[in-house]
Amino acid sequence: MSLLVVGSIALDTVKTPVEEHADLLGGSAFWKSHQIDTTGVQRVNGKTFRWSGEYAWDLNTRETRSVALNVFETFSPQLPANYRATPFVLLANIAPTLQSHVLDQMERPRFVVADTMDLWIETTRADLDALLRRVDLLILNDSEAREMTKETSLIRAGRKIREYGPRYVAIKKGEHGALLFGEDEFFSAGAYPLEDIHDPTGAGDTFAGGFAGYLAAHVRENVTFDVMRKAVIYGSVLASFCVEAFSLERLRKLTQDQIADRYQMFKMMSQFEVLT
Amino acid sequence: MSLLVVGSIALDTVKTPVEEHADLLGGSAFWKSHQIDTTGVQRVNGKTFRWSGEYAWDLNTRETRSVALNVFETFSPQLPANYRATPFVLLANIAPTLQSHVLDQMERPRFVVADTMDLWIETTRADLDALLRRVDLLILNDSEAREMTKETSLIRAGRKIREYGPRYVAIKKGEHGALLFGEDEFFSAGAYPLEDIHDPTGAGDTFAGGFAGYLAAHVRENVTFDVMRKAVIYGSVLASFCVEAFSLERLRKLTQDQIADRYQMFKMMSQFEVLT
Repeated sequence: MSLLVVGSIALDTVKTPVEEHADLLGGSAFWKSHQIDTTGVQRVNGKTFRWSGEYAWDLNTRETRSVALNVFETFSPQLPANYRATPFVLLANIAPTLQSHVLDQMERPRFVVADTMDLWIETTRADLDALLRRVDLLILNDSEAREMTKETSLIRAGRKIREYGPRYVAIKKGEHGALLFGEDEFFSAGAYPLEDIHDPTGAGDTFAGGFAGYLAAHVRENVTFDVMRKAVIYGSVLASFCVEAFSLERLRKLTQDQIADRYQMFKMMSQFEVLT
Repeated sequence: MSLLVVGSIALDTVKTPVEEHADLLGGSAFWKSHQIDTTGVQRVNGKTFRWSGEYAWDLNTRETRSVALNVFETFSPQLPANYRATPFVLLANIAPTLQSHVLDQMERPRFVVADTMDLWIETTRADLDALLRRVDLLILNDSEAREMTKETSLIRAGRKIREYGPRYVAIKKGEHGALLFGEDEFFSAGAYPLEDIHDPTGAGDTFAGGFAGYLAAHVRENVTFDVMRKAVIYGSVLASFCVEAFSLERLRKLTQDQIADRYQMFKMMSQFEVLT
């Protein structure tokens, strides 16, 4: 089945402790080939959305240096008619009102994944809460989960966010992996053991894209917790490639065999009973 | 087979954001029943070793408020003759010179596990380095691994510590689980999803005791990486019970069935391919 992705395309300037690169292709939803229908991409006259950030020495925290929304400021996604019945929807990280606006145009989607960030938790909480009641899975990172719930324990935070609406919650923990919460189910995944991380920018977007893409490619009937476990690993695998180079450089060269090999490595590094 | 444990017995005063308790039984090696031979415990006239610490709001970091070594200051462990051929050895967290002194008295142990802490990394690094060349597995936490190697990446840190001597390294990450490093092998375990943590004191000692105890109970021939994976989970299970109450209160009431149930939960929460 197919997947609808709504998000942004931007130009990024990224500084890490060892490198700085300007005018990189960025944003939460960029796609170029791989049998992706990009007819719905809207081009608007004016300046491109720009973001610039700097990472701390440990690459775990970053500071936004500047954001210029430019044409993105008045963006209001309009779905082409043939997009509206897409069964899987990924609402990548944009303002919650825009995410809701996309959902308004959809015809009974089967499974809706939403990503968000600290900015919306802090500035548009009511809009975000309204969105949460309409999504199946919310993806956010550990500090955002703590901020949203005022809980220090990620276990409490994950369970509390489910009470806000989403049936499932995925909390990303960077180098520590990810947690997935369901009603009576729980999954904990490690991160792929990378020695060198060149640019963490886009890891979260790539995780969300890999997760939702896995569901769209593998679910025939219902989305079960067991298929979501695999989707978490698949998203983690893609994110681990993303951070190996700046922008989308590593993802552009990525092959299905490389993905399959790393998925297998994930299995080996996390199993302790049945080693196959 | 059997396991020799060398460590301390102390009285602790522990303060968390919600509670404070004084004169708790503590130290890195306390045992009372469970078919444990305590004839080697040395009692010395004088004041008991005391430690007092306070935990931050998130229970992840703690500050030592006071340490009074008292009789422990001149402690030099003397092994009873019938302890010297014990195949498995756990050198719990005491000064590296004392840990080495114990090893000097052992007759060709099969597998030596050592625990350590920031104090020894900072103050007796040369002694610690000498010890590391004689142990099979070093256990330490994430901040200690970073401090010891000056590496920000835990993956690099774990691999670097292996170069100091130990064939295997286990890095504990608190609420994020644990990592195990071998020559060409790697294992990543999550932590048991606890909503309420009452007292983290002793979690590291309990992990080490559970790990080494598992090896002693299950290894007949060689210690393989696969049996160590299970030992990591077993240690994590025991540590997850430890933190549910102050001091050893929860461990005193622990049953084999409760351990087996939680081990099974670990399996369910980390598997994504073969769900049995």
